[in-house]
Amino acid sequence: MRKICFVITSHIHYARSKLILEELKRDLGTELLIVVGASAILDPHGDVLSLLERDGFPHHAKIHMMLEGGNPIAMAKTTGIGIMEFATAFDNLRPDVVVVRGDRYEVLAAVIAAAYLHIPIAHIEGGDVTGTIDESVRHAITKLAHIHFTTNEAARKRVLAMGEHPKYVFNFGAPELEFVAKNTFQIDNDFINRLGVGDAIDIDEPFLVVMQHPVTSEMGKNRAHIEETLHAVHDLKIPTIWFWPNVDAGSDEISKGIRSFREKYKPEHMRFIKYLPPEEFIALLKKTHCLVGNSSAGIKESSYLGIPVVNIGTRQNNRLRGNNVLDVPHNRNKIKKAIQKQLAHGLYKKDMLYCQKDTSKNIVRTLKKVTLYTQKVFHDRK
Amino acid sequence: MRKICFVITSHIHYARSKLILEELKRDLGTELLIVVGASAILDPHGDVLSLLERDGFPHHAKIHMMLEGGNPIAMAKTTGIGIMEFATAFDNLRPDVVVVRGDRYEVLAAVIAAAYLHIPIAHIEGGDVTGTIDESVRHAITKLAHIHFTTNEAARKRVLAMGEHPKYVFNFGAPELEFVAKNTFQIDNDFINRLGVGDAIDIDEPFLVVMQHPVTSEMGKNRAHIEETLHAVHDLKIPTIWFWPNVDAGSDEISKGIRSFREKYKPEHMRFIKYLPPEEFIALLKKTHCLVGNSSAGIKESSYLGIPVVNIGTRQNNRLRGNNVLDVPHNRNKIKKAIQKQLAHGLYKKDMLYCQKDTSKNIVRTLKKVTLYTQKVFHDRK
Amino acid sequence: MRKICFVITSHIHYARSKLILEELKRDLGTELLIVVGASAILDPHGDVLSLLERDGFPHHAKIHMMLEGGNPIAMAKTTGIGIMEFATAFDNLRPDVVVVRGDRYEVLAAVIAAAYLHIPIAHIEGGDVTGTIDESVRHAITKLAHIHFTTNEAARKRVLAMGEHPKYVFNFGAPELEFVAKNTFQIDNDFINRLGVGDAIDIDEPFLVVMQHPVTSEMGKNRAHIEETLHAVHDLKIPTIWFWPNVDAGSDEISKGIRSFREKYKPEHMRFIKYLPPEEFIALLKKTHCLVGNSSAGIKESSYLGIPVVNIGTRQNNRLRGNNVLDVPHNRNKIKKAIQKQLAHGLYKKDMLYCQKDTSKNIVRTLKKVTLYTQKVFHDRK
Amino acid sequence: MRKICFVITSHIHYARSKLILEELKRDLGTELLIVVGASAILDPHGDVLSLLERDGFPHHAKIHMMLEGGNPIAMAKTTGIGIMEFATAFDNLRPDVVVVRGDRYEVLAAVIAAAYLHIPIAHIEGGDVTGTIDESVRHAITKLAHIHFTTNEAARKRVLAMGEHPKYVFNFGAPELEFVAKNTFQIDNDFINRLGVGDAIDIDEPFLVVMQHPVTSEMGKNRAHIEETLHAVHDLKIPTIWFWPNVDAGSDEISKGIRSFREKYKPEHMRFIKYLPPEEFIALLKKTHCLVGNSSAGIKESSYLGIPVVNIGTRQNNRLRGNNVLDVPHNRNKIKKAIQKQLAHGLYKKDMLYCQKDTSKNIVRTLKKVTLYTQKVFHDRK
Repeated sequence: MRKICFVITSHIHYARSKLILEELKRDLGTELLIVVGASAILDPHGDVLSLLERDGFPHHAKIHMMLEGGNPIAMAKTTGIGIMEFATAFDNLRPDVVVVRGDRYEVLAAVIAAAYLHIPIAHIEGGDVTGTIDESVRHAITKLAHIHFTTNEAARKRVLAMGEHPKYVFNFGAPELEFVAKNTFQIDNDFINRLGVGDAIDIDEPFLVVMQHPVTSEMGKNRAHIEETLHAVHDLKIPTIWFWPNVDAGSDEISKGIRSFREKYKPEHMRFIKYLPPEEFIALLKKTHCLVGNSSAGIKESSYLGIPVVNIGTRQNNRLRGNNVLDVPHNRNKIKKAIQKQLAHGLYKKDMLYCQKDTSKNIVRTLKKVTLYTQKVFHDRK
Repeated sequence: MRKICFVITSHIHYARSKLILEELKRDLGTELLIVVGASAILDPHGDVLSLLERDGFPHHAKIHMMLEGGNPIAMAKTTGIGIMEFATAFDNLRPDVVVVRGDRYEVLAAVIAAAYLHIPIAHIEGGDVTGTIDESVRHAITKLAHIHFTTNEAARKRVLAMGEHPKYVFNFGAPELEFVAKNTFQIDNDFINRLGVGDAIDIDEPFLVVMQHPVTSEMGKNRAHIEETLHAVHDLKIPTIWFWPNVDAGSDEISKGIRSFREKYKPEHMRFIKYLPPEEFIALLKKTHCLVGNSSAGIKESSYLGIPVVNIGTRQNNRLRGNNVLDVPHNRNKIKKAIQKQLAHGLYKKDMLYCQKDTSKNIVRTLKKVTLYTQKVFHDRK
Repeated sequence: MRKICFVITSHIHYARSKLILEELKRDLGTELLIVVGASAILDPHGDVLSLLERDGFPHHAKIHMMLEGGNPIAMAKTTGIGIMEFATAFDNLRPDVVVVRGDRYEVLAAVIAAAYLHIPIAHIEGGDVTGTIDESVRHAITKLAHIHFTTNEAARKRVLAMGEHPKYVFNFGAPELEFVAKNTFQIDNDFINRLGVGDAIDIDEPFLVVMQHPVTSEMGKNRAHIEETLHAVHDLKIPTIWFWPNVDAGSDEISKGIRSFREKYKPEHMRFIKYLPPEEFIALLKKTHCLVGNSSAGIKESSYLGIPVVNIGTRQNNRLRGNNVLDVPHNRNKIKKAIQKQLAHGLYKKDMLYCQKDTSKNIVRTLKKVTLYTQKVFHDRK
Repeated sequence: MRKICFVITSHIHYARSKLILEELKRDLGTELLIVVGASAILDPHGDVLSLLERDGFPHHAKIHMMLEGGNPIAMAKTTGIGIMEFATAFDNLRPDVVVVRGDRYEVLAAVIAAAYLHIPIAHIEGGDVTGTIDESVRHAITKLAHIHFTTNEAARKRVLAMGEHPKYVFNFGAPELEFVAKNTFQIDNDFINRLGVGDAIDIDEPFLVVMQHPVTSEMGKNRAHIEETLHAVHDLKIPTIWFWPNVDAGSDEISKGIRSFREKYKPEHMRFIKYLPPEEFIALLKKTHCLVGNSSAGIKESSYLGIPVVNIGTRQNNRLRGNNVLDVPHNRNKIKKAIQKQLAHGLYKKDMLYCQKDTSKNIVRTLKKVTLYTQKVFHDRK
C-alpha cells in the first residue's frame, strides 16, 4: 500500500489541496500521511490543525521552522531549519512519495529533505512564472521533483523544456478551481460579522474584498504600499472585508500599516478578518463585487468565477491571467480608478485557463499508479 | 568596487578554482572575499585553510556544517545547517555577487542562503548531466543562479533550455583544464613517498592512480564496490597511488574497506594518500599510466591530458566524456581487464571537449562587468 | 587590551546595562564588543539597534534566533538555534570575556556557546530565586559562568553555596537601581501621548502603569489572566499606561486578550504603549501612582523608588521584595482592591535592598582586572 | 502508566545503564521509551542500535546531532543542534520523565529540551567533580534536573549544597558497579582476536588495556599526549589491548597519532579495538593486569575490581578515586615507571566507594513512585 505524504505549510495550501486530500482519504488502496508545518501551525495565521480536525484528517508530524524577523535573513535561516525538521519527519514516516505544492521556502525545505532521503517528490503547480524569489524557487523545486502536476498548458511546456521526462509531467488543471467549481457553501452577514474586528459589513450589498500580502523582495516598502491601498479604499467609502496579510517577510510592515491607519482614521466601513476556512472563503469570494490586492486568488479562483480584480504591484507579475484582472501600481489614485472601473464593469465571463474536470481524481490516480523512481536524468529534447 | 565572494567547500573545488582566484586577486578593481566551509575546513580531508595561506589568499568566513553520519539524513540536515551558516556569513560580508561551483549539497546551501538574501549568484559548471542526487541539485542551483559559466556547449544548451536568459549564460570552458594546461609543476619519488602510508612507489616507472569516491545513492554497497577495485588492483600487482575517498555519505564504508583489506592482505605495491595540493596532483596525473575509479578527474582533466581512464560504476553516468574512458561495472575481473587494456593502449590524443583559452580571464571579466540583477524571469524560448 | 563582549537580548536588558556599557565605552583600557540578538533586534518589541545608535554604541554581531510559536517547543528550539548563532559570533569576535545578565533562554544559549569555546563568562544577577523555568536556567547559568555579579546579599550566598569560588563572587548591587538613582530625565504629556494607541493620558494626574508579561509555564492561561487585569483596571476607570507584553512564549495570548478587550469594551482611559527607552521609562515610573502586573520593575526599580506595586500571579514568586509590593492572584476583584489600597497608601519609603553605590564602576573595574580562567572546579565549603 | 524515557548518547552510557533498562523493561507498571543519539548511532564508534536489538530493547527516536570537526565550535553547535532534535523527539513521545546520565554536551542538550518542554528530568551521577568543561556542564544539568541519583556520598552533599530539595536527592550507588558485580560473562583469545586490527594478544597471559580519550580543553595537544603513551607501552613490550578513542573534540588527533605510530614503528604486541559490548568489556577488564589511560573505567569499575590503574593527565582530575590509581602526567618515562609499579603490585583490595546493593532496583522504584513536579525552587539551607 503506497504511503503518500502530503505537506501542508499554510492555510491557503490546505484549502487548495482539500479535494485531493479527501480523494486520498476515501481511497482504500493508499495510506495518507499529513505533515503540517510553518505558518500552518502558527495561530494566529489560520489554524490548520483545527481545520484538519474539523474535516476528519489526522496529522502525522508538525514542523516548527519559522524564525521571527520577517526579513530576508530570517527567510534563509527558516529554510535551513525547515530542512532539518522535515528530514526528521520524513525519516520517521518513511513515505513512498511526498506531495508538495507551490513555490515557497517551506516547500523548498520539504523538497530538499525528501530529495536527500531518496524519497520521490510530486510537485503541484510547477512551471508557472510569477515574480519575486518564489519564481526561482518554484523552478528549483521542479528540478528536484519527480512527478509534476502543472495547472496549465504553458506551465507544462516549461517543465518539459527544463528537461523533465514527458512521462512524468501532467496537466490536470488547478485543484483549487475544481474546489471552487464544486463548492456550494453559503455564508451570511451573521457569520462574517462574528469574525475579526472593525465595522459590520452587509455582504448582501456591494462590497470589496482586499487581500494584500507582503512582497518579500520589497522589504521596507510594504508599509507604504499598503497605505496607498488603505487610502484608496477609505476614500471610496465602499464596505470592505479586509484580510490581514499572510505571515511572511514583511507581514509586520503591513499589519503595522493597517493598525496605525485604523487608529488614525477610524475607518467606518471596513472589517478586518484573519482568514476564512476554505469553503467559507470561496462563498465570500463569490459575493464580492471586486477583489483588490495581490493575492493569487485574484489570478486563479477569480478568473474562473469572473470576479473583477484590481491587482496591485509586482507580486503576481508575469503570471498567466484572465481578462478579469486590471493591473495597477501602488498609487492610491490609480487603485481608486481601477476599483471604480471594475465595479462599473461587473462580473466577467468565466475563464477556463486553469480549470479542468476531475483534477483531484486524476492527481490521486497518478500518485497511486505511476512508477516511482529516484534517480533523475535530464531529458534532452531535440 | 564590486565585492566578489567565492565559496570553497572542498579541496578539489579549491584546485579547480585556483586560476580564477588568482585572477581576482590580481585585479585591483574588485574585492575578493573567500568563504571556506564544509569538508574544506575539516582536516583530515585536505586542509584548504593552509593551502589558502600558502598561496596568499585570505579567508573571510568559515562554515561549520557537516553533520556526522555519512548517511542520507546527515546530508539533508547538513544542507539545512549550511543554509543557516552561509546566511550569517553573507549577511556579515554583504557581497555583490556570490560565486559557486558544481552540484553538491554544500553548494546548494550557499546558493539558497544567497538567493533569499537577494545576492546575485554566479554558478560555474551548470548544465552538466551526471547522476546521483547531484544531478538534480546541479539543475536546481541553475534555477536559483543568475549568471552561468557552463564548461561545454551541451551544458550551455541545457541551461538555456531551462529558461535562463542567453545574456547570462556563458561557455568559457572548464577552469580546471586551463589550470592543467598551464601547470608546469613537477613531482618526484621523494615527494610522493613522504606522504601517506603504505609502500614506496617509483613514479618513474608505470603506476596506477586510484580515486574511488562513495556514491551517496548506493549507501551500504560502497564497501563491496571498493573491495572489487582493491582485489583487481591487488591481483595485477602494479604499483599504485591510492587516494582515500572524499568525505561524503558513504566515505566510512570505503575507508573501512581499504583498512580491512590492508590488514588482511598486506598489499605491497600500494601507497595510500589523503590528497595532494592542486599543482602536485596534476603533476602526478600526468605521470600515471592509468587512472582508475570514479573521479571526475577521469572525465575532465584526463580527457585533456589523454590519460587512459577506467571509470567504474555509476558516479559519472551520463557525463560527457572523451575516448580515453573505458566504463566498467563493479566487477574485479572486468576492472582488471579494462586496466590491462588501457595500459596496453597508452596515452590518448588530447581531447578539447571541455577546454578553451582564457577561461579564468573571461570568467573574471564577466564577473566584473556584467550587469547584476536579482529578479529572475523564466525566459520562454520559441 | 581586554576584549569585553556584552550580550544584549532584550530592550529591558539594554536599559539595565546602560551604565555599565557607558563605563566600558569611556574606559580606554578595554575594547567593548556588543552582540545584539533575540527580541532585541526584532522590531516591534523595542528596537535596541536604534537605541544603540542613538546612544553612540556600535554593535558587532546580530543574533537571529527566535522561532515563532510562542510555545514551549519554540522556546526549546530557539535555545538550540541561539547556541549555533552565538558560537559563530563569539568565534568571529574572539572576546576575552563574555558578559551576560539574567535567566532567559537567549542568555543560556550565549553562555553555552561561550563555555564550549572556552571563553570566560561573567554573569550579572545570579543567585536570585524567581519562579518559572527561568529559576532553573538562572542557576544553570551560574554553574557555567566564571565571574558572578550578584545584586543582593542573599543571592551572593546562594551562588557561594552552589560551589562557586568566593574570589569570583561579587555583590555590587543592581546596576538598574544605580541607573534609576542617577536618572534625571523628565517626560511630559506630549511625549507619552505621541506613542502607542488608545486614549490620551494626563500623566500630571494620578495614573496607573500596567506591565503584565506571559508566564511561559502557564501557557493557555495567559489570556484569561490578562482579562482579569483588564477588567479590574477597566472597572476602576483610572487613567492607565498599559505596556504590551514582552515577546515570549504566551505573548500572543496576552496581545490577543488586549486586542479583543479593546474591540469589545472600547475602554476610554487606557493608552497602550510598546515600550519606552530606558531613561523615559524611569521617568514614567517615577510619576505613576501604582505599578500593576508582574514585571520585575515592580520588584527592583519600584522598591528603590517606593512606588506602590500590585504584583499579580506567580511570575515574581520567591523573589526578594520590599514593602511596596502587594501580591494578588489573577482575580479581578482582588486586583481592584489591591490597587485601591495602594493608591490610598501612596509612596513607600525607599528600600535599599538591591541598591549600592558605584555598581557599574565596580563591575567594570572587576571585568578589567580580575584574573580570567576557564577551568572551573566545584568549591566545596566546610 | 508512567512513561519513562531513557536517553542514550554513547555506548559507554548504554553499558552503564543496562541494569536499569532491564529493570524498567521487566516492570509492567511503566512504559520504557528509549531515545538513542549522538555517537551512539554513529558507527564506527560502537553501534548501540544493534546492541539494543541484540538485548531486546526497542528504540523510539534517533537523534542526529554530531557536527564534524572535533573542535570547540563543533561541540558548541552540536549542543544547539541536539536541543532542536531532542525537542522534536520529546514532543513526539511526551514522556512523563526523562532520564539522563553524566556531564556531556549531548546530555545537556537533552536536558535543556526537556526542561523547556516542562518534562521532569532525572539525572544520574550528579554532584561529581571531574575536570574539563564537563565539570561545569554536570552541575548545570543538576540545576535543570528534578530528581537526582548521585553515585556517592560526597556527590550527594554537593547536590544538596547547590539548593536541590533533599526529598529528590538520592544516593543508591553507581549502576555500572552493580553491573560489574553481577556480570559473570567470560571472553577468550578467540573472541578478542577476531576484533580490531594488529597483533594477536594472549589474554591468558599478563596484558595491559589502554583507553585514552581526548581532552577537549587540550585541543592541539592530544596527539603529543597519545604519543607519550604509545612510546611508553611500546618500550615496555607488554602485550596490550588498545581502544580507539571515543568520538569527541580531539578524537582525530589521537586516531592520527595511533595510525602514524603504527605505520612508523609497526609495534608487534598491540591489538587495536574499537569497542566491546558491555558484558565483554567487563570480562576483559577483569583479566587485565593494568588499565592505562584516562578512562573513567579506571576510576569507577576498576576501583571496585581492584584493577591497578595508571591514570594519565587531567581528564579525571578531582574525581573521587580509590587506592588502585596512580596518577601521572603525559610523560613516557613516568608512564612506564607507573605501569611497572602497578604490575609489580598486582590486584588491589576491592573498594566500595561507589558501590551499593540494588542500585538499579532503587532507581527504578523511585522513578515509578516519586511525585513528579516541574517548578523548581532553590532550597536554601540553614
